[in-house]
Amino acid sequence: VIPQTPLGAGREFDLIRELCRRWGELCSGIGDDAAVLTPPPGEQLVLTTDSSVEGRHFRRDWLTPREIGYRAAAAAISDVAAMAASPLGMLLALSIPAEWLRDLAALADGIGDAARLTGTPIVGGDVSSGSELVINVTVVGSARKPLGRGGVQPGQALYVTGRLGGPDAALRAWLGDSEPAADARARFAHPVPRLAEARWLATRGATAMIDVSDGLLGDAGHLAAASDLRIAIELGDLLIMAGVSPEQAARSGEEYELIAAAPPTLDMAAFTRETGVPISRIGKVIAGPPGVDVTLRGERVASAGGFSHF
Amino acid sequence: VIPQTPLGAGREFDLIRELCRRWGELCSGIGDDAAVLTPPPGEQLVLTTDSSVEGRHFRRDWLTPREIGYRAAAAAISDVAAMAASPLGMLLALSIPAEWLRDLAALADGIGDAARLTGTPIVGGDVSSGSELVINVTVVGSARKPLGRGGVQPGQALYVTGRLGGPDAALRAWLGDSEPAADARARFAHPVPRLAEARWLATRGATAMIDVSDGLLGDAGHLAAASDLRIAIELGDLLIMAGVSPEQAARSGEEYELIAAAPPTLDMAAFTRETGVPISRIGKVIAGPPGVDVTLRGERVASAGGFSHF
Repeated sequence: VIPQTPLGAGREFDLIRELCRRWGELCSGIGDDAAVLTPPPGEQLVLTTDSSVEGRHFRRDWLTPREIGYRAAAAAISDVAAMAASPLGMLLALSIPAEWLRDLAALADGIGDAARLTGTPIVGGDVSSGSELVINVTVVGSARKPLGRGGVQPGQALYVTGRLGGPDAALRAWLGDSEPAADARARFAHPVPRLAEARWLATRGATAMIDVSDGLLGDAGHLAAASDLRIAIELGDLLIMAGVSPEQAARSGEEYELIAAAPPTLDMAAFTRETGVPISRIGKVIAGPPGVDVTLRGERVASAGGFSHF
Repeated sequence: VIPQTPLGAGREFDLIRELCRRWGELCSGIGDDAAVLTPPPGEQLVLTTDSSVEGRHFRRDWLTPREIGYRAAAAAISDVAAMAASPLGMLLALSIPAEWLRDLAALADGIGDAARLTGTPIVGGDVSSGSELVINVTVVGSARKPLGRGGVQPGQALYVTGRLGGPDAALRAWLGDSEPAADARARFAHPVPRLAEARWLATRGATAMIDVSDGLLGDAGHLAAASDLRIAIELGDLLIMAGVSPEQAARSGEEYELIAAAPPTLDMAAFTRETGVPISRIGKVIAGPPGVDVTLRGERVASAGGFSHF
């Protein structure tokens, strides 16, 4: 932990001071023009930035301010997990409308929850006013050998952690003006970055990974495109939430579970025993042009695209 | 340069692909969940994030889209300069309103201008829609020994690079519905991160540094507060733009020049000869409680605070 540099006067600095007070020891080295970190010798850096925009990524009538803060930070940290890396620190850039100022403490507490859960100190940031809330989270992490999307190899199987479908079920409920089931809501509001799970998989032969943010099929498509090969997915093998169809689970975005390419002999029982997270083997690399074939109990189903903001 | 990982399908990815096409070789390693960088062995990392929000940090009727992009990136890179560090890469998170989509190419070209000028590859990012344009730029850099704000030492003098007052003069003109003078406008639209200048100063005994973003007096106050000592500034010694008063120059924010604490014997002529940038010695460390005393030709003048968003 780097010692704090005292901040100068002014309303903006009062706000940063107040946020740091709430974060306690999680707030590290704030107050210089830039944060200073010592990278672990011999490791590569991974860097990711992720913005959560009010009305686009979350709605205030769906989540509490604390959940909104947690989710924004967890989503960014999940990208570091997907590289099989460990987080070193995060930077926050907040655009804050006046009507959000009174909920800022709760928002900060949610960000602190994610920081604490994942051991990611908050090392810097930027606050400004804005007409809509934007929570931008940048995370830096490191790994001896980060895993990208382009490392899928012939002969490998495709695995996915967790049970999918919760976020999609929660969204469908909210958009239909009903309350989602508690477990679906929890999966939307409280995704857990799969940091230890990713490292477990990387040490057992996983060579490519991605987190499920666009939906299983969209993200498997990214793996196939980046690795320049064809993947066959059988949705009947996917672990799904109760009350959700395999097709719904396969389209569900913002899951923040991992898709990994690893040897077909992976010890899935050991994974679940050691991490507490279920895992399913859902596909394999096949011959053919880059892309994804999707079947449900052997029947070909249409491939669904990912979510696009535009 | 890290090889590109091909992106999947979808409108969002088309946009990122189009941006990367414009940036050419400056776009490096985009397409995985996180960017991968190799830190220089034995160096510390510096990390900074900076958001430019439409209507708060810039106005479309003042600057061209290309200038807006340049300025957002240059402002963030300046924070790395202020640590006497060298940039390794930047991440961009853009919230883009529909009416900005047609100017996105020009915005990207401006960001590319700043990347090229400073040798900072664009290694990752995030694009989403939004109701106002937010350009968030995170920069990672490294230095063997980064300089913070807290390193001012008794016996040192205070230096400032460049001629101040341009951005304030440009803002006053625009807010008074007139066109700023060309040199003032250029100082607002095209600040140059003082990377080489900061390293020059760091190798000649500078031990603390900050860039002028809140205004000379506000930022000198940050140095004094962080270093827990008192600084006397004589505004009559400040290099200022033609047509600007010393008080105006001392309040002018977003200059992105450097304030450095260094030995009083610093060879200012050599600095200007080797960097092409003027420099002035404007103050010294004095006895007394933390703070800043400001005089103009020996007469005490009121200390002005920095700019606050709230």
